[in-house]
Amino acid sequence: MSSSLGTMFRITSFGESHGPCVGVVVEGCPAGLKIDMGEVQRDLARRSALSQPGATPRREPDEVRFLSGVYEGRATGAPLCMIIENTNIESGAYAEFVRKPRPGHADYPARVKYGGFNDPLGGGRFSGRITAGFVLAGAVARLVLRRAGIEVDAHTVAIGGVEAPPCDAQLIRERARLNALSCCDGPSAVRMVEAIEAARERGDSVGGVVECVARGLPPGIGEPVCAGIESEVARAVFAIPAVKGIEFGAGFALSRLCGSEANDPFAVSDGRIVTTKNDSGGVLGGMTTGMPLVLRVAFKPTPSIAMAQRTVDLDANEEVELAIRGRHDTCIVPRAVVVVESMVAIVLCDLALQSGFIPRVMRCQ
Amino acid sequence: MSSSLGTMFRITSFGESHGPCVGVVVEGCPAGLKIDMGEVQRDLARRSALSQPGATPRREPDEVRFLSGVYEGRATGAPLCMIIENTNIESGAYAEFVRKPRPGHADYPARVKYGGFNDPLGGGRFSGRITAGFVLAGAVARLVLRRAGIEVDAHTVAIGGVEAPPCDAQLIRERARLNALSCCDGPSAVRMVEAIEAARERGDSVGGVVECVARGLPPGIGEPVCAGIESEVARAVFAIPAVKGIEFGAGFALSRLCGSEANDPFAVSDGRIVTTKNDSGGVLGGMTTGMPLVLRVAFKPTPSIAMAQRTVDLDANEEVELAIRGRHDTCIVPRAVVVVESMVAIVLCDLALQSGFIPRVMRCQ
Amino acid sequence: MSSSLGTMFRITSFGESHGPCVGVVVEGCPAGLKIDMGEVQRDLARRSALSQPGATPRREPDEVRFLSGVYEGRATGAPLCMIIENTNIESGAYAEFVRKPRPGHADYPARVKYGGFNDPLGGGRFSGRITAGFVLAGAVARLVLRRAGIEVDAHTVAIGGVEAPPCDAQLIRERARLNALSCCDGPSAVRMVEAIEAARERGDSVGGVVECVARGLPPGIGEPVCAGIESEVARAVFAIPAVKGIEFGAGFALSRLCGSEANDPFAVSDGRIVTTKNDSGGVLGGMTTGMPLVLRVAFKPTPSIAMAQRTVDLDANEEVELAIRGRHDTCIVPRAVVVVESMVAIVLCDLALQSGFIPRVMRCQ
Amino acid sequence: MSSSLGTMFRITSFGESHGPCVGVVVEGCPAGLKIDMGEVQRDLARRSALSQPGATPRREPDEVRFLSGVYEGRATGAPLCMIIENTNIESGAYAEFVRKPRPGHADYPARVKYGGFNDPLGGGRFSGRITAGFVLAGAVARLVLRRAGIEVDAHTVAIGGVEAPPCDAQLIRERARLNALSCCDGPSAVRMVEAIEAARERGDSVGGVVECVARGLPPGIGEPVCAGIESEVARAVFAIPAVKGIEFGAGFALSRLCGSEANDPFAVSDGRIVTTKNDSGGVLGGMTTGMPLVLRVAFKPTPSIAMAQRTVDLDANEEVELAIRGRHDTCIVPRAVVVVESMVAIVLCDLALQSGFIPRVMRCQ
Repeated sequence: MSSSLGTMFRITSFGESHGPCVGVVVEGCPAGLKIDMGEVQRDLARRSALSQPGATPRREPDEVRFLSGVYEGRATGAPLCMIIENTNIESGAYAEFVRKPRPGHADYPARVKYGGFNDPLGGGRFSGRITAGFVLAGAVARLVLRRAGIEVDAHTVAIGGVEAPPCDAQLIRERARLNALSCCDGPSAVRMVEAIEAARERGDSVGGVVECVARGLPPGIGEPVCAGIESEVARAVFAIPAVKGIEFGAGFALSRLCGSEANDPFAVSDGRIVTTKNDSGGVLGGMTTGMPLVLRVAFKPTPSIAMAQRTVDLDANEEVELAIRGRHDTCIVPRAVVVVESMVAIVLCDLALQSGFIPRVMRCQ
Repeated sequence: MSSSLGTMFRITSFGESHGPCVGVVVEGCPAGLKIDMGEVQRDLARRSALSQPGATPRREPDEVRFLSGVYEGRATGAPLCMIIENTNIESGAYAEFVRKPRPGHADYPARVKYGGFNDPLGGGRFSGRITAGFVLAGAVARLVLRRAGIEVDAHTVAIGGVEAPPCDAQLIRERARLNALSCCDGPSAVRMVEAIEAARERGDSVGGVVECVARGLPPGIGEPVCAGIESEVARAVFAIPAVKGIEFGAGFALSRLCGSEANDPFAVSDGRIVTTKNDSGGVLGGMTTGMPLVLRVAFKPTPSIAMAQRTVDLDANEEVELAIRGRHDTCIVPRAVVVVESMVAIVLCDLALQSGFIPRVMRCQ
Repeated sequence: MSSSLGTMFRITSFGESHGPCVGVVVEGCPAGLKIDMGEVQRDLARRSALSQPGATPRREPDEVRFLSGVYEGRATGAPLCMIIENTNIESGAYAEFVRKPRPGHADYPARVKYGGFNDPLGGGRFSGRITAGFVLAGAVARLVLRRAGIEVDAHTVAIGGVEAPPCDAQLIRERARLNALSCCDGPSAVRMVEAIEAARERGDSVGGVVECVARGLPPGIGEPVCAGIESEVARAVFAIPAVKGIEFGAGFALSRLCGSEANDPFAVSDGRIVTTKNDSGGVLGGMTTGMPLVLRVAFKPTPSIAMAQRTVDLDANEEVELAIRGRHDTCIVPRAVVVVESMVAIVLCDLALQSGFIPRVMRCQ
Repeated sequence: MSSSLGTMFRITSFGESHGPCVGVVVEGCPAGLKIDMGEVQRDLARRSALSQPGATPRREPDEVRFLSGVYEGRATGAPLCMIIENTNIESGAYAEFVRKPRPGHADYPARVKYGGFNDPLGGGRFSGRITAGFVLAGAVARLVLRRAGIEVDAHTVAIGGVEAPPCDAQLIRERARLNALSCCDGPSAVRMVEAIEAARERGDSVGGVVECVARGLPPGIGEPVCAGIESEVARAVFAIPAVKGIEFGAGFALSRLCGSEANDPFAVSDGRIVTTKNDSGGVLGGMTTGMPLVLRVAFKPTPSIAMAQRTVDLDANEEVELAIRGRHDTCIVPRAVVVVESMVAIVLCDLALQSGFIPRVMRCQ
């Protein structure tokens, strides 16, 4: 099991859904960074289930506690350890899944891999709960990036087959925070809520797509050929449970275009080199071009559903029916928006440090 | 610049398009592995341009030379260094691109990142030529995997908007090698060739999609939460030039399904645990399920096209027109099939060693 | 700043002397390992200052809290996070050292490196206090090793110029725990205490040497040429504050011998291959030989002394006199014995996992 | 087997004693660095056996060939691959050692670890020959460091029990190159040659000690707590065959001093912060202090000796006598001087890049 990402800005995730806490250690945060606790807490709140349609009824206050690495409100250069205690735990329902693995869940391969010793409660290490630790690290990464003029924003672009129209990169933050789905288009958000509610009534679930945009990146960030932007972002994003696909710029659609359509022409604008469109998603040869980084992430529907499903009783080696009870999200996409932002921010912070664009010490602030 | 992948089975790529050679160092190859030079050479031949529609007229013999790590025909446990010398080089055309970066190419961000010192000839380090080194490492990885009963096969599923129908995993190898496009469906291959030829006549290019399937994997391979199968495969695949998207199993289509449709029910078949369908692509929680691993990779069209394009003269800081001459592929997808196979094999070999499924020494053979 | 060690068994240390806690995350602990809390607590107690001559009057209960990775008393395969809360803190004395760096301490280079943002209280991240986190990780590593028949023991072999006679590897554990100095020879221990007391009375300090022996190692552990036993052990041991030298087997004395004296002849004993002496310290070519691993570690005297010393007022850029008050060890060597054991155990656990000698899952126990 | 060192400046070593070549890949060399081929070749010549007492009669021209990473005489930012072809090979003598392992050599543990598949010829991967690859990487590292004002020099301070008096750091380079032993003191060098010749006549061998000094380092290089200067240098130096100990500054002698003697007082000299002596060897808390880095490395005597030794016939499992024929060094210490310099330079280059002290692109030169 590997729970670390990054080289210069390195995170190590720990914790389980029903253990004492979830948390993260961040190595390589530049010394001198002012830690804006409000900002960290706000990012956590965006991941929480309190106000989101389709979210689990599990309610947690999710207050971060810094165990190390901060002195007089600033990062010291030492590892930051941050935790959130787990409360409001109901573990009763999970014993059954050790024996009868849930379709679409990690139960079965985890049992094989860990010899049955993995913590099953609430999904244990495989719960979406652990992404709270990613959000903590991402919040710190975003503070670092902001000091360097880089902003990362994500939004919901599809849920349950409902697709929102494109949104200008500059407007994502403002618009996405207007509704609980983090969708920039109000009418689409309404239809997404309908799709979620319909699924919930059936005891079913829905998935969706999150788009993430990073602005303010200079050209040349990324370490090709094996640690380019796309490689590192994809690696981090697939650490989020339920992600099944990622594409950059026009992505899969590029595979259907001709080169003369797909290539982004270079131009001069206000003395800067730009491209007149951005189908490459701001990456060429694994390096940033100076245009916004754009990527889309596909989430499968939540696998825990109330409808009866076919599975196997592993002890009896026979097929059985399973109905999952307990508190589960009908759609995790809106809560995943800040998680995608976090993973992208963590990777960009790491690569910008490697490139020397972000310094090891942030002197004046 | 980072040119390494892997932990226990670790590759380090080197070489440029017009330098003395391209090559790779492989650390962690199990001692005792019989090195089937014919197999390595056959994989290289599949990447070569000799017989493929849409391929560059550059012709290279591409003979591998082992510089280390083999004794009496077997891997010794020491690093394997393999190289292919570069021949048939025409460097004349490239000086222009330092000043006038090609749209869709790494020229511009590379110039910024490396201060203008990067080797521009033939694209230098950013040329598709470097994937020959990946194929060498991949060929070794496939020999290791084969000893453990694991087979990796890829095929072309779309080119220039022409999509081939699905192909059974067992039949991919046999069928894909029947035509120069590595497409399992003959009629589709004919239409793909037409699309390529039409683009070539216009001085344009086309992209496509490669699907890769790995069979014989036991459950539990992969190191969640940050080095799961999808994370590691995606990271490696995005090291291939022109890749802009990846999806596992039903991928982006899963985001439009309900949970009751998306989940793969477990069942017992011949005493083994299986799923009755495989929309998860053989991965749950970042670990293999025992079903075939299935992934699709989107390639953008070759950016080097003969048609005139808009770009910038970086020294004059003004917009100019660029017409690219030289030998370029109209479509790199057929040649990329073995490269995708190689990257997937490298990652699976690494993760299977980490899991202990593949031993450090292969005693009898 | 890098606070991680290891590849398959990977530790990440965090915490400061006067922060909320010190702690460690351990990745790669085999699933199924029974966590003997008593053993962990006993190792911590050996590092504590309660009963040791020369130790700081700072008294801390040092109780470990597991934040993750354990379920029903066993390791789950997920990262273990362990912390010890800091109590009994007196931070008044340290503000002065930011301006007037203590000779022999990290104050000056840390101020330069971290731009003055590093936590100065109690030495912050550079305090010996952080070794409590290493001991936690080491205790887990020793539980793993024990399951594989490997035992690691250290003892004090010199303090303040007083050298103890050699001790048989089998007897170290029993004898070293008879006195508070962890010295296997009673009469030497008495003289060491005298040396410590004499230094304390003068307001001075003393250093010493710790020897560590690991028994039960099979031949072939270690990953040459760059991650051999000696490379990895040395790297880890130099992470302990105040270490200035390390040698394996006869070490520096080997440099004065002839080959015919230095080489250890091979022999057969009870059907096993052994060497008739062990001047190589159980390592050849970076790999274990099957004989005990033997190494010695030199500790400099505690740099914090009550006697007046010359330093510089960095703000005034002028030389001044400094007298250090506060609670400091006169000799840290006895407390370092368990820390050396811990670092060696962590490295051996990592290398034994890499070699495949220790499995990823410990099924029956 | 792991053959890589470093994070930002990363080397991967490959090759065997009697294979086609020895070589190294260097990742992370700053783009723009002028590659002084003469300097690289001069370092190689210092490692060669041509002019050194006690050296093997094996004579090799040792000419470096750059396979990648250089364009128009400068580093491009891409991986540098450098090789030296092996010539003048006599492999006849080695078959015997597979069955009868040489005392003091890696033969026995390598046979166990690699299942008998390791290349035995000339010691294969465990030969001192592989250090030629380290010297290539070290020569590049030294070119980088020189651009930043950092110089690394080593010299022989003891051979066969003959110890040279201390030498001022400024004078090492000039003096050490006056004689074939790289010893700064002429009279000591004469006696060292006598010790070597006496051993050779007996069919025996001798060891010794190399001291290395790096000047021009700013304060704050090194990544504590786990990748401090001493940790990283020690790790690299123990990758050199025959090294059995390392100490920094006064090293083991510090363990016998009091704190008031051991601490280096700070002072102001020409406006810079210095210490009035340098018993810490220029490192505090794992970071450079701005004073010269000083370390000493103990080499055991060459294990291959002509005198008869006791070993075991592993196939018959019985004790036998072994007399080693073939070309072996009586003393490898003089040839190891440039290897120690190389390892230290590689580590300092890596840590100086991590600290941001050395830039990723070297623009004007």
